[in-house]
Amino acid sequence: MFEITLVQVFDFIGTLAFAISGIRLASAKHFDLFGAYVVGVTTAIGGGTMRDVLLGQSPFWMSNSFYLICSAIALAWVIIFRKLLVRQNNTWFLFDTIGLALFTVTGVEKTITAGFPFWTAIIMGTLTGAGGGVLRDVFINEEPLIFRKEIYALACVLGGIAYFICARCGLSTVPSGIICGIVVFLMRILAVKYRLHLPTLKGEE
Amino acid sequence: MFEITLVQVFDFIGTLAFAISGIRLASAKHFDLFGAYVVGVTTAIGGGTMRDVLLGQSPFWMSNSFYLICSAIALAWVIIFRKLLVRQNNTWFLFDTIGLALFTVTGVEKTITAGFPFWTAIIMGTLTGAGGGVLRDVFINEEPLIFRKEIYALACVLGGIAYFICARCGLSTVPSGIICGIVVFLMRILAVKYRLHLPTLKGEE
Amino acid sequence: MFEITLVQVFDFIGTLAFAISGIRLASAKHFDLFGAYVVGVTTAIGGGTMRDVLLGQSPFWMSNSFYLICSAIALAWVIIFRKLLVRQNNTWFLFDTIGLALFTVTGVEKTITAGFPFWTAIIMGTLTGAGGGVLRDVFINEEPLIFRKEIYALACVLGGIAYFICARCGLSTVPSGIICGIVVFLMRILAVKYRLHLPTLKGEE
Repeated sequence: MFEITLVQVFDFIGTLAFAISGIRLASAKHFDLFGAYVVGVTTAIGGGTMRDVLLGQSPFWMSNSFYLICSAIALAWVIIFRKLLVRQNNTWFLFDTIGLALFTVTGVEKTITAGFPFWTAIIMGTLTGAGGGVLRDVFINEEPLIFRKEIYALACVLGGIAYFICARCGLSTVPSGIICGIVVFLMRILAVKYRLHLPTLKGEE
Repeated sequence: MFEITLVQVFDFIGTLAFAISGIRLASAKHFDLFGAYVVGVTTAIGGGTMRDVLLGQSPFWMSNSFYLICSAIALAWVIIFRKLLVRQNNTWFLFDTIGLALFTVTGVEKTITAGFPFWTAIIMGTLTGAGGGVLRDVFINEEPLIFRKEIYALACVLGGIAYFICARCGLSTVPSGIICGIVVFLMRILAVKYRLHLPTLKGEE
Repeated sequence: MFEITLVQVFDFIGTLAFAISGIRLASAKHFDLFGAYVVGVTTAIGGGTMRDVLLGQSPFWMSNSFYLICSAIALAWVIIFRKLLVRQNNTWFLFDTIGLALFTVTGVEKTITAGFPFWTAIIMGTLTGAGGGVLRDVFINEEPLIFRKEIYALACVLGGIAYFICARCGLSTVPSGIICGIVVFLMRILAVKYRLHLPTLKGEE
């Protein structure tokens, strides 16, 4: 019982944080309230939607209004606490990272359950975690941030690999998922704390 | 018999208007004829395609060449009447609005038939009506227009809500659909006539 | 046996060339290594993925790691031979064109096998060949190149029409596919050699 609740709490604050990141970037581009909401929703559910479409399943939010309501709360939050958002940056970063970790685990598990190989599950975990942010940046007409800044999607990949190793060592779903999530979470925290970047390719001659 | 024909007429002029809006924006960006056609087709069928993919159905245009032929007619129209298009703006706005209304109704009905809840149907109606325009703007590398200009997608949402209320009041599919379409149509006309905008979020501090 | 091997060789060098085109453009935009890999993979498998989603099938790369490994080889190639890439341009253009031809044939055949009409198969062939490049340009936030430069996607369309004519004339799958591929290949070579452009629409007045 407690466990389910904890996952739900993480799901809520992760969705909230993803939606808020979309709404803030959309409003920086002077989108109207509806546009900001759409970008927020897309950031929150876009990765999981692409995953479900690729897996041939019905998108998770189509029979559960939870995610759209979360995004509406995110919009209200941005409107009400507009002037305090910058001061809340550390909290939102933390929540965003929790979301990244949880969504990665969800993506990995759903793909394994659907019977695909492990490397596909790692891709799907990464897509679930980082795909929404890419769609967000396409919508607001910017180059995807995650391809140029601190390690982000790579944290999901490493988490997926950790899941794979755990499963290979005989661990069951729950501990494998927890370890996967912790790896994503720590990698992302460390990446931002120590400004870990991947190298960029040097120009051609 | 007459009724079916009227829906088909609306479908034709709506598809034509959507395709023309894509072709005009693509040619303003100096896309070639093929690129302009692709953007026109995408504007016309993009929303319905995303809806069908999310519903797990085969996209409507894959077994009916009507929509691709409409888009070809739209391309021919833009080539032939190039110099008159600006003068036809009111007509195309009217046709575009008819398309918006019809596509919204189609999206709502198809989603309800597929067994999803009403709020999903409202989203799918909005996606069917407004999604093609978003894809168009992504292709021509602009921020989606509908997120910054007069009320557009919100008209679809209101139409969807009207459908829901009608159905709750016991009305059957046809009158519910007609009322839904009229609400979308009127909202959009009023939005442009009185320049109704949604507020934008004020900047952070 | 030889035939299968030849198709596989073409598949390999086509995937490699597509991925390299994505990686080069991504690194010109200062994406990091992970971002460059993602753009490379997207260019290589994006068209076929959209085709499979529209056909309601499981994307081809989800149960075959070949394409992701190819893209990793492409990334290694760009890193190692960075300074020689410009001198290899003719080779990569040739490989890219082989990929374009093969992917078109694959798309046409898969769609016919799925039971859709021929004009849908032509669209799907074109999407398979040219769709990855469009996704690539959306990701790197540029207007899609294929809509403004030398004839590219139109070569796929003509190849698809050639396939249709062959099939109508009673040819079986293998010769129809070969002729389709040759038409795409030659059209693209000729288009670049003689700088064949489609006209652009003149501006409105």
